[in-house]
Amino acid sequence: MASEFTLISKYFKNLTGQRAVALGIGDDAALINTTSAQRLVVATDSLVEGIHFPSCANAEQIATRALCVNLSDIAAMGATPKWFTLALTIPPETASSQWLEAFSRGLATVAKEYDLALVGGDTTAGPLTISITLLGEVPVDGALLRSGASVGDSIYVTGTLGDGAAALAEITDNGATEVSKRLLDRFYNPQPQVQIGLKLRSLASACIDISDGFLADLGHICQASEVCAEISSQQLPIHPELKTNYPEQSVVWALSGGDDYQLCFTLPQQLSHKVDQWIEAGELDATMVGHIVAADDKHAILLDGNPVTTAIRGYDHFSN
Amino acid sequence: MASEFTLISKYFKNLTGQRAVALGIGDDAALINTTSAQRLVVATDSLVEGIHFPSCANAEQIATRALCVNLSDIAAMGATPKWFTLALTIPPETASSQWLEAFSRGLATVAKEYDLALVGGDTTAGPLTISITLLGEVPVDGALLRSGASVGDSIYVTGTLGDGAAALAEITDNGATEVSKRLLDRFYNPQPQVQIGLKLRSLASACIDISDGFLADLGHICQASEVCAEISSQQLPIHPELKTNYPEQSVVWALSGGDDYQLCFTLPQQLSHKVDQWIEAGELDATMVGHIVAADDKHAILLDGNPVTTAIRGYDHFSN
Repeated sequence: MASEFTLISKYFKNLTGQRAVALGIGDDAALINTTSAQRLVVATDSLVEGIHFPSCANAEQIATRALCVNLSDIAAMGATPKWFTLALTIPPETASSQWLEAFSRGLATVAKEYDLALVGGDTTAGPLTISITLLGEVPVDGALLRSGASVGDSIYVTGTLGDGAAALAEITDNGATEVSKRLLDRFYNPQPQVQIGLKLRSLASACIDISDGFLADLGHICQASEVCAEISSQQLPIHPELKTNYPEQSVVWALSGGDDYQLCFTLPQQLSHKVDQWIEAGELDATMVGHIVAADDKHAILLDGNPVTTAIRGYDHFSN
Repeated sequence: MASEFTLISKYFKNLTGQRAVALGIGDDAALINTTSAQRLVVATDSLVEGIHFPSCANAEQIATRALCVNLSDIAAMGATPKWFTLALTIPPETASSQWLEAFSRGLATVAKEYDLALVGGDTTAGPLTISITLLGEVPVDGALLRSGASVGDSIYVTGTLGDGAAALAEITDNGATEVSKRLLDRFYNPQPQVQIGLKLRSLASACIDISDGFLADLGHICQASEVCAEISSQQLPIHPELKTNYPEQSVVWALSGGDDYQLCFTLPQQLSHKVDQWIEAGELDATMVGHIVAADDKHAILLDGNPVTTAIRGYDHFSN
């Protein structure tokens, strides 16, 4: 395996644009010009082989998924993502130039799409693990938090739900060979809703990204906002392909499957009409799925009138 | 193993002070109030079990080493460390409450000493890996880079060299049982030279932290500054304990052992007297070890008049 210095300079040094980077990869640390009057937004996520992606995933798929998953957290804050660092732990036998080129190509593709600069990192030998720390900016008091939902607010989700879990099921059952192209793309190249996060900035009362499962993540909003929620399963946005191919599982996956990387947000009633207009005009891909109600003792969510616990997905779904 | 949410809120949420943190752990991302007119400094480092620390290391030792190693990079920039995120990958069978309490105690000790705020993180199941991203601040144009050394500059190192390699040798040979207390402390609780970095800010022409080995890291300065260096092995600061116990290895370890986390810096001649006065007065623990000379073709370092290649330490010294 090449030395750390060679790896970084060869595969990662000039990978991305360097907007507002005073000093990039190559010194002890990077120097960044932040924007005054903005707050810095920081999110960290790790992906471990066999847990967050299957061993059959290729290097480019791993890279795009890792960066998109992190971007989703920044999107949920209503922030503009700008810079990231990469800690790549990789088994020496995996670290071929072919693998590293594909991995850096995946990173570069997503970085270009979202105008991100890779500013630093570390490569070490060990079991395949990718940790990314993403930095972004948001105007002071502009961030979308989990804690702002109020009784009477409408609850929306972006895109469709359940695709992450369906993709996972197909990949686990079929390996990489017979997975729907759409689902494979949703899994390895999820679309972090950065633009929608920015659009919702002065409107949404609360926002979270759906990574653990819709109910679990809505549960986080309820807990942080000290409210409860009423949801209608009929209103859940589920892709026709999913409904057709998985008539029994699709609703369960939409409710608690996780890995969707859509946004769940709440809107004060007086602002709903504005967002509804955007949705009707095709300017926003989102669906109203319920309402915020007063908290009970257990912060349980009412699904079609029945209380459900916010089932928290196990996070070792690939491991034995 | 407890769920990710429980782990973070139980062991990491209120671990540190929250200076300039607008929103800490518990939402999709953290919000930080940066200082206008300062540049943001970002460094990332990963530690993998069996590579960067031996399997016999306890949780508190792993935590203090991980944070100190990262702080050393910020120190080498002449920056003030402020915030950090933690990506902890841990085998379920290791993640006992006892282990996690000891680990968070180690983090808290170092965080308190350097006034750092833990602002976010991620815990995942997998082989033990700790990735820390440290954020700091430095005045615009105040950072100490590797690239500023000029012909005629004096070369200094802080503290003593070779202790990291000696500690490694003792730990590898003897396990945790018969290692010198001083060396064990140097290995698991290295002292990042943050205060010296700040003190050198408007003086040093170049600076780097000694993690890969003195010659290798001085080589990085030479390469970035397009110069060469002349070093005298007689002048290398080596602790008396090391000279006595390892008469044959101590100089080699000081030159290329690595893991010392001291600073190597260069000073323009006209500023040397100021630093020499500090050293004489006991205000600065540093030693002059050589001079910067004009570059030759190979950027080789002259050691006692003989060219040496800047041996780069293998970084898998614990594996196999």
